[in-house]
Amino acid sequence: MKYQNLDQNPAYHSLLHTRLEAGISTLLDARRVEEYSCAMGDDMFFNYAATPVTERHLKLFQQLTREAQVLEQYHALLNGEMMNGSEQRMVLHHLTRGQCGAQVEHTGVDLHAFYSNERERYATFARQIHAGEIRSSAGHAFTHLCQIGIGGSDLGPRALYLALEQEARKDNALKMEAGFISNVDPDDAAAVFTRLDLGRTLFILVSKSGTTQETLTNAALVRTALEDAGLDPAAHMVAVTGQGSPLAQDERMLERFYIDDFVGGRFSSTSAVGGVLLSLAFGPEVFARLLEGAHQQDRLALEDDIRANPALLDALLGVYMRNCLGYCATAVLPYSQALSRFPAHLQQVDMESNGKQANRYGEELHYPTGPIVFGEPGTNGQHSFYQLLHQGSDVIPLQFIGFSTPQGNADRNIDGITSQTKLNANLAAQIVAFARGQQDSDRNNVFPGRRPATLIHAPRLTPTRLGALLAHYENKVMFQGFLWNLNSFDQPGVQLGKVLTAQVLGGDTEDGALQAYAAKLGVWA
Amino acid sequence: MKYQNLDQNPAYHSLLHTRLEAGISTLLDARRVEEYSCAMGDDMFFNYAATPVTERHLKLFQQLTREAQVLEQYHALLNGEMMNGSEQRMVLHHLTRGQCGAQVEHTGVDLHAFYSNERERYATFARQIHAGEIRSSAGHAFTHLCQIGIGGSDLGPRALYLALEQEARKDNALKMEAGFISNVDPDDAAAVFTRLDLGRTLFILVSKSGTTQETLTNAALVRTALEDAGLDPAAHMVAVTGQGSPLAQDERMLERFYIDDFVGGRFSSTSAVGGVLLSLAFGPEVFARLLEGAHQQDRLALEDDIRANPALLDALLGVYMRNCLGYCATAVLPYSQALSRFPAHLQQVDMESNGKQANRYGEELHYPTGPIVFGEPGTNGQHSFYQLLHQGSDVIPLQFIGFSTPQGNADRNIDGITSQTKLNANLAAQIVAFARGQQDSDRNNVFPGRRPATLIHAPRLTPTRLGALLAHYENKVMFQGFLWNLNSFDQPGVQLGKVLTAQVLGGDTEDGALQAYAAKLGVWA
Repeated sequence: MKYQNLDQNPAYHSLLHTRLEAGISTLLDARRVEEYSCAMGDDMFFNYAATPVTERHLKLFQQLTREAQVLEQYHALLNGEMMNGSEQRMVLHHLTRGQCGAQVEHTGVDLHAFYSNERERYATFARQIHAGEIRSSAGHAFTHLCQIGIGGSDLGPRALYLALEQEARKDNALKMEAGFISNVDPDDAAAVFTRLDLGRTLFILVSKSGTTQETLTNAALVRTALEDAGLDPAAHMVAVTGQGSPLAQDERMLERFYIDDFVGGRFSSTSAVGGVLLSLAFGPEVFARLLEGAHQQDRLALEDDIRANPALLDALLGVYMRNCLGYCATAVLPYSQALSRFPAHLQQVDMESNGKQANRYGEELHYPTGPIVFGEPGTNGQHSFYQLLHQGSDVIPLQFIGFSTPQGNADRNIDGITSQTKLNANLAAQIVAFARGQQDSDRNNVFPGRRPATLIHAPRLTPTRLGALLAHYENKVMFQGFLWNLNSFDQPGVQLGKVLTAQVLGGDTEDGALQAYAAKLGVWA
Repeated sequence: MKYQNLDQNPAYHSLLHTRLEAGISTLLDARRVEEYSCAMGDDMFFNYAATPVTERHLKLFQQLTREAQVLEQYHALLNGEMMNGSEQRMVLHHLTRGQCGAQVEHTGVDLHAFYSNERERYATFARQIHAGEIRSSAGHAFTHLCQIGIGGSDLGPRALYLALEQEARKDNALKMEAGFISNVDPDDAAAVFTRLDLGRTLFILVSKSGTTQETLTNAALVRTALEDAGLDPAAHMVAVTGQGSPLAQDERMLERFYIDDFVGGRFSSTSAVGGVLLSLAFGPEVFARLLEGAHQQDRLALEDDIRANPALLDALLGVYMRNCLGYCATAVLPYSQALSRFPAHLQQVDMESNGKQANRYGEELHYPTGPIVFGEPGTNGQHSFYQLLHQGSDVIPLQFIGFSTPQGNADRNIDGITSQTKLNANLAAQIVAFARGQQDSDRNNVFPGRRPATLIHAPRLTPTRLGALLAHYENKVMFQGFLWNLNSFDQPGVQLGKVLTAQVLGGDTEDGALQAYAAKLGVWA
């Protein structure tokens, strides 16, 4: 394999000089909306009609894909090559939902079998909990869950839980209601405790290394709260961790489920990190459907033709807009309240993976990499930051997500129109408003337009499609890492803060400013 | 008054050429941490030691303030001049919490008296509800609240409610628990209904114009749900609206509280828009303390000396980093779970106010204005997007907020260190890590440093200090609007989307792309 920087590919230089001067404002028409659309299976599609690209760009994208050996890199990853070089690790989160490449082993263990086996174990455990065969130390059936984790052990699982909670409630299929404790701020745990009946709550402690400071601190807070309530912490807690971690040896657990070093935190939602929670909350069958949806996208991502590979196409569009058009950020805008925390999860998946300036050989990169990612659900965002998106200084490419029908059954026909119809009318209108803009003699009412948008759409948000959405974005970020020639799977940028925090807590820093801040903040009282 | 564009001020051009080449990495020391700190009253401070400015910059900031007549504009605003020119309106949100300038009248009414009188009315109403003197149509005392509003009628009130909820719970002082419905997505309302006992819930319907589509749609959903439960909607709902609005005439209300056109949505948290909710949830006395804290900052913002005026200084630093250093975004990072939605509120306050490219005369501006604003609470963000903040392509100035002690009582000493100590050790470490960076032979472990940060700190988050934080940022955004010479109080950028949405819903668009998107989204089934 030949790994080269983005600017070593001839197609990139051609793209730098291939610019749609007219923008998309005049180009966008009905035919383009039909043609610039890529099927994702399961009646989903990825539409890119409102992005500033033409057939010429798409041809160069295809060429760039070949030159950068993007699909070859994906195959290598699937086949167990060590794609996380700085940490000397394979990257195997795809294996948690299916096998797309060769069998991958580590120390003689087939890792697809390992992940599947763990899934079977927590499926069985979930069924026992649901049946009341495993009970709390107060003798109650467990009715509530609380995940204790931070970063990848929190954001993805939480976003997925929230995405399916209403759907399940409507059908009386919510098996256990979940809460989350992530922040080391003790007020986070305090807020969750007030909502939980501890005697009926099962805690899921998630830390791959078993050493995450925030998570261990919160676990200790939880144990104290359980003891204060006269309960036995060991009967109320399961761990999700690596087999060699200190947590794996912790006797104070009802059960342990395992992950390994080949599934990075932010890519771990489909492993036990998300699976234990989701299987307990919704049942193992629902989690299996989510995995199936993710696996379908993983397979689709193998397509050579970029116009039939939505994750790769999305990645190429993002790189083009970042590197050739110079846009610094992108907004994720789901027109679905169920996806309220999905942007926060994608913020981690994207910014922690590709917010780097070194290539895979540890050499400095001289082009922009990962953009800022932010977002809130529409229509809420329309009444908040859309003013800047429409008329602000910078162009911010928009990633819309929408569904034809709601999950719940609250929709009503009011004045002849349902809420869902209004929601989607807004979505259609926004895409076109951003693209076209508007001229006016008063500069206050001028909309420059030419603001690119993509749309992922499905008839309805189901567990399968939620898995598809998740995998789509994971794969998009992976492909962008390949294009930028960086390691998307490590996070060296979190180390310095950890080192200095330890110095502050240990009282062993010579840095006068650090001492002064610590004193001001009351760390040294 | 002489309103001129930023680039018409000589000090701005001097600032363009005043750059700290060494950055802050070597400059930051203990003395600077002490000296570059601005008292905010009530034991709060605004620290800017880790920003790339020197005495020379501060002198030019002071000069720019004079040249741009920033404080004169603030006085004019306080005295009732029509500062929202495009909408032909005064800007009077400061009057909702106190009088800093002259008496302001409209059609013969003293507006400070008007806002105070409304506050008295909803304080009395809240006391009646708390005493059980006003009961639900099922005969129950009201125990729960639900605010129906979007944008400014949602984000600010919600952020403030969440900021005080735990504090109140701990002291058994939470008088009513609140939920929120904002999105027109019917799944949003459905999710809230599952948590509420409708027979004990009071709904607060908030729309200044009384015509907000999302809010009226959700009000209709709520009425239907109440009727389906055999309850009388009119006995379960109050309105917060303008006196001339259709809502003000709506008979189906238990009570109506009024706002007016001089308090913009995103600046309305201290009016009845936030006040009814917060007075009901926490008691009128708590809301009064919040107003007192806000008013103190409004007074502090009158200071001529920028080093004694934290909101103005914060504004100047932001403009310098946006326009002279070219940074496109800023992150708000509260090390406090209670402030979990405060960044989302500031996102609206900032991006909707200053995301504009026309000056107050309707002329195009040729310099960048409002930045992208995003954020999540630390330490959560550390495990998410901090990778990009530390090592990404773009420098993103950081706005930290911290407190010495938590609100709740869940804090425990674990391994000799409390959670709060860990939280603040992280905060101190991050500021220094961002500023200093780190050299290394492996580019993966290089931290470029020179990433600016400010810190607002207080011993503990109280209602008074929450009001101070709110007003600080409102005033900062206002001052930046003055510096950029734009109208921070209108939102022309939301109009085009509304127009196209109405076209889609009415089926009267000739735009082929819009028709195609609407069809794909199932609007026209």
